[in-house]
Amino acid sequence: MPLTADTVEKWAEQVRRGDVRSVSRAITAIENHAPEAEELLRLLFPATGGAYLTGVTGAPGTGKSTLVDRLGAHYRKKNEQVGVIAVDPTSPFTGGAILGDRIRMQGHAGDSGMFIRSMATRGFLGGLARATAEVALLMDAAGKKQILIETVGVGQDEVDIVRLADCVLVVLVPGMGDDIQNMKAGLMEIGDIFVLNKADREGADRLEEQLLAMLTLVMPRDGWHPLVVRTVATESKGIAELAAEVARFRNHFESSQERNRKRAAHWKLRLTEMLGSRLLERALRGAGGEARLEELAREVAERKTDPFAAVNEILSKSGFSS
Amino acid sequence: MPLTADTVEKWAEQVRRGDVRSVSRAITAIENHAPEAEELLRLLFPATGGAYLTGVTGAPGTGKSTLVDRLGAHYRKKNEQVGVIAVDPTSPFTGGAILGDRIRMQGHAGDSGMFIRSMATRGFLGGLARATAEVALLMDAAGKKQILIETVGVGQDEVDIVRLADCVLVVLVPGMGDDIQNMKAGLMEIGDIFVLNKADREGADRLEEQLLAMLTLVMPRDGWHPLVVRTVATESKGIAELAAEVARFRNHFESSQERNRKRAAHWKLRLTEMLGSRLLERALRGAGGEARLEELAREVAERKTDPFAAVNEILSKSGFSS
Repeated sequence: MPLTADTVEKWAEQVRRGDVRSVSRAITAIENHAPEAEELLRLLFPATGGAYLTGVTGAPGTGKSTLVDRLGAHYRKKNEQVGVIAVDPTSPFTGGAILGDRIRMQGHAGDSGMFIRSMATRGFLGGLARATAEVALLMDAAGKKQILIETVGVGQDEVDIVRLADCVLVVLVPGMGDDIQNMKAGLMEIGDIFVLNKADREGADRLEEQLLAMLTLVMPRDGWHPLVVRTVATESKGIAELAAEVARFRNHFESSQERNRKRAAHWKLRLTEMLGSRLLERALRGAGGEARLEELAREVAERKTDPFAAVNEILSKSGFSS
Repeated sequence: MPLTADTVEKWAEQVRRGDVRSVSRAITAIENHAPEAEELLRLLFPATGGAYLTGVTGAPGTGKSTLVDRLGAHYRKKNEQVGVIAVDPTSPFTGGAILGDRIRMQGHAGDSGMFIRSMATRGFLGGLARATAEVALLMDAAGKKQILIETVGVGQDEVDIVRLADCVLVVLVPGMGDDIQNMKAGLMEIGDIFVLNKADREGADRLEEQLLAMLTLVMPRDGWHPLVVRTVATESKGIAELAAEVARFRNHFESSQERNRKRAAHWKLRLTEMLGSRLLERALRGAGGEARLEELAREVAERKTDPFAAVNEILSKSGFSS
């Protein structure tokens, strides 16, 4: 059932007022890539830009979910509206996303200032990053001033998601063996603040030493030197200190050009993705649709044609001049 | 310097003969998205389809690299040509890919039947999955009958890469805490064989029990029940048994339609990606190129326009009829 412009306008208004049901419905529309989602986001876009996005990333088992939960609770105590987006496919909360949200929400039952959503979208190219970005926009429009995005720190898709964030927390725990070695490749470069969680465990001091040693090798970005904060999230220890460092980071960059550069780079990526899927849709419409694409895929699999010839066939029928 | 058709034909011939330098050059061309890479792959395509692709995935620290190394050595002893593609961004071998390949190659120095390549490509949408797929095709054309693809098992990009594989090994080790809980979401569904590595460690029996209990919940796919193989890769223990299970899996599916379905699904994804990047290239050419896209991205970041209006501007100038 297509919605009238009037209905979408009313829906947008309810989202802006932070109505939980309207926000939930909008997220579902985004996840399903429903046509009204675009109209809604377009209406809401001018109301966005006020949220601060913190990405929380790290290997499975580092306690990211608990950390996000406690950090969210900390912001709520300061009376800031909080949105949580869990896109960690290894999180016990995702997969069974709805159940997961229920479990999470229990601790914040009746608090309309804390909105939590797990993303279970998978399976199409870039879909998870797109959906996450759109849900963040939506929460932004709904007045959430602190948005926390939880994700595991490996994989291009996760890196794309983390790139959304204004501030990136990389979570580590003692006793995961050669973890520092392993994380070097990707995470070291994207972390603004390193969280040494489960800091009451054996090996925490050694890990901190190693981390600090490694961080001396990292070039400061626009005058910011990544640092280490120790937490025991399960006991809410170190959470206030962590929030203070995030705030310090925020102040540091609000004044610099780095934030604008980062946001522009983010939108370049987003526009590219949006453009890509629109173009694909149009091209297929002219060339026999998904059915013809599937037929060609079978022919390529059987070596009856080659992939380049297949792509050229669709391009030539796509209605694209040149 | 553009290559003549004649030169590319000669190059393809050398790749088909398995000439190491020609294969290396071709991989570099693929990674750089060089125009001659397409022509080369088109020429080589009819010679592909003979390789068996085994994907090896699991969390950082599970010993995937060693396992791949030993499995490769096992196939070499059987006189099968082996190609290894390491796309694990957390692997100590990637990042510094060239050094990594050198370190890896040492154990196989002078063995032209073992070709190892680390993929360091990053940063553009779907780029890693595309490049990995093309390198696998190339190794296939070069006569590698066993191709091993190592990747970490999280993230959409990694899932896309693993989807390339005919058989997927999921590697676990004892003592990584709530790992089984964590891996449930994504890896449980894609594993054909579960490898319990470092099986001499404490907790191996318990992990195996948990795994087996969990596997009873997994629906068999076309009559195949995922199973567990114990290995100590560093001591080459269990490698022959693992190879035997991979062979059993292969026999099971060579006869079924599942392999064809999987390959067709793979090519559908690949064609979609290829089409998407071609379309994008063309559309931008007509609409002011990347410079205009960057300008629009800045305007969106500053809320001077909205992303949908920006995309529509490019679409309308793209020369796309409709």
